[in-house]
Amino acid sequence: MKIAILPGDGIGTEIVAEAVKVLQVLDLSFETETALVGGAAYEAHGHPLPESTLKLAREADAILFGAVGDWKFDKLERSLRPEQAILGLRKHLGLFANFRPAICYEQLTHASSLKPELVAGLDILIIRELTGDIYFGQPRGRRVAVDGHFPGAEEAFDTMRYSRPEIERIAHVAFQAARKRGKKVTSVDKANVLETFQFWKDVVIEVHAQYPDVELDHMYVDNAAMQLVKAPKKFDVVVTGNMFGDILSDEAAMLTGSIGMLPSASLNAANQGLYEPSHGSAPDIAGQGIANPLATILSAAMMLRYSLNQPEAADRIESAVKAVLSAGLRTGDIWSEGTTKVGTREMGDAVVAAL
Amino acid sequence: MKIAILPGDGIGTEIVAEAVKVLQVLDLSFETETALVGGAAYEAHGHPLPESTLKLAREADAILFGAVGDWKFDKLERSLRPEQAILGLRKHLGLFANFRPAICYEQLTHASSLKPELVAGLDILIIRELTGDIYFGQPRGRRVAVDGHFPGAEEAFDTMRYSRPEIERIAHVAFQAARKRGKKVTSVDKANVLETFQFWKDVVIEVHAQYPDVELDHMYVDNAAMQLVKAPKKFDVVVTGNMFGDILSDEAAMLTGSIGMLPSASLNAANQGLYEPSHGSAPDIAGQGIANPLATILSAAMMLRYSLNQPEAADRIESAVKAVLSAGLRTGDIWSEGTTKVGTREMGDAVVAAL
Ligand SMILES: CC(C)[C@H](C(=O)O)[C@@H](O)C(=O)O
Ligand SMILES: CC(C)[C@H](C(=O)O)[C@@H](O)C(=O)O
Repeated sequence: MKIAILPGDGIGTEIVAEAVKVLQVLDLSFETETALVGGAAYEAHGHPLPESTLKLAREADAILFGAVGDWKFDKLERSLRPEQAILGLRKHLGLFANFRPAICYEQLTHASSLKPELVAGLDILIIRELTGDIYFGQPRGRRVAVDGHFPGAEEAFDTMRYSRPEIERIAHVAFQAARKRGKKVTSVDKANVLETFQFWKDVVIEVHAQYPDVELDHMYVDNAAMQLVKAPKKFDVVVTGNMFGDILSDEAAMLTGSIGMLPSASLNAANQGLYEPSHGSAPDIAGQGIANPLATILSAAMMLRYSLNQPEAADRIESAVKAVLSAGLRTGDIWSEGTTKVGTREMGDAVVAAL
Repeated sequence: MKIAILPGDGIGTEIVAEAVKVLQVLDLSFETETALVGGAAYEAHGHPLPESTLKLAREADAILFGAVGDWKFDKLERSLRPEQAILGLRKHLGLFANFRPAICYEQLTHASSLKPELVAGLDILIIRELTGDIYFGQPRGRRVAVDGHFPGAEEAFDTMRYSRPEIERIAHVAFQAARKRGKKVTSVDKANVLETFQFWKDVVIEVHAQYPDVELDHMYVDNAAMQLVKAPKKFDVVVTGNMFGDILSDEAAMLTGSIGMLPSASLNAANQGLYEPSHGSAPDIAGQGIANPLATILSAAMMLRYSLNQPEAADRIESAVKAVLSAGLRTGDIWSEGTTKVGTREMGDAVVAAL
């Protein structure tokens, strides 16, 4: 088994180092190889996703990814900006199924913006389609408008699209995931306005016929954004497209109050996957040794479970993280009165010790 | 001056009746004419926006709108569904500037899902572009995919687009609104992925050169969805496109905990406007006399201010609403221990009495 380690930018290096440390202590047999990605790769090789990094990612069974991005790259043309690396990996590896759990840890309930009773015990799984939609649809670009409100004016445009097999496969992923949980799927669309999402809804309903044991409901994206605030615990599995999923999964993650704890997985049809924390590269605190490594460590656990077929090892990591929280250790982002503030490395060490 | 009264479906009739009662007591000189819209118009005339209703709306200086929609119309083909009426009015009247305040009333802070300290005194103005974007972009429909992941498969698609003058005019609206408030605009985009929103950002920056007294910042839509939960009070004016604005304005409204209090205005270049509550038609409670009429009454106040040039009358209504809240009157949606529960009509009567 081979794991590609892509730390990236900002706090990426620090947090990935802790996850690698945790993996090593498990005494499993795997090989790791590290490569540059994002801004770091651009600075060294002139491209955020160099051929060599892409080749490594393709060959690996799984990718442990840190984070990419830094303000200093904001002025680059878009195709060279750090986030193109993550879009490129998703596309080239066909990582169409993005799992983003929004879990509120018992010990961290108070950290949420929401009143504790609304989030205590929260456990939602957002499944976001990750290789289609307006993210990749062609044509796109700039041109002179031929119709619309201002014919003759300069305009920019993008294409939203979903094909039947793309919707079918992500719907299967969602129903299968729901079977292992609360047996309820909420499909989020905007069928009242968009052709793409009327089709999405139609196809999800068709696929649902194969899962009579799973409950399905449909919600417009604007309403979903509201219901997440009002009563997040009513959701079990949420499935939606790439663009809506981008927005709702971040909203849901922030609702927990501890985005520094939330892992994610992006899988292709062969269960090859990219694993990364839900948070970003936080260049403002990079290099200070204060970032929370737990989302990355929990991403490594997801990797063991989904791509490397080591569910017991995944369970062990997750239990170790809970033990460390129960012992009162906290990085600054989740710290509160009465708990012990620790740095990135101490937190990683504590998880290792708990193992 | 002529006001078109379009009550619509569900609770629409009940709440609009209270707002009309409030307008009448002000002793201003205006004419009103009422017409069917939405599902009610479909049932009577076979179309959610009949020619006669559209003609009335065009001729009026302002439109007071209730709400449209009911589950019983879900099976209709899309072009006949109630919400097409609102899309049609926006399009035919060119109502490109949607003002959606998210205000947390002092007396209702506890009603929010968020901790009181995060929302006390909240006052955000979301300005959503309302006649462009993927809502109206052509082409759209179903076809056989010629490229993408599954060439040959059935697919559905829509077109996102914005032209320079469309972005310029909404940017001007936002900067001018900010001048009268906290002098800060946050432009929400997804410039890291979408051509349309890179262009949006570029044009907003250009327009900003004419408003050196207003601060401008930019935020990706996924981050905006998070920051609204984390620290909503950091926002002043938020300007964004039709699709992102749909999602974020609903999220922001729900954060206040009292969406039954929030009005909205949709204006065209001639200051002709459509005024409606931010909430929907709530068919589940229609006809029971328990809906909150305050969002509609406050929409009537916005109408007086923006379209009918009666700012003092608008102020009077807003003060009356605050007085009624201070007196402890509450409809069920905002009721809490220690306050007096009243029905739709009693609430309207109380506002009239306070005037
Ligand atoms: C960096 C950006 C392109 C990316 C996205 O929009 O998908 C990010 O927000 C995410 O959710 O992984
Ligand atoms: C009913 C629907 C078409 C509409 C929209 O998406 O614009 C509504 O959600 C709104 O925000 O006014």
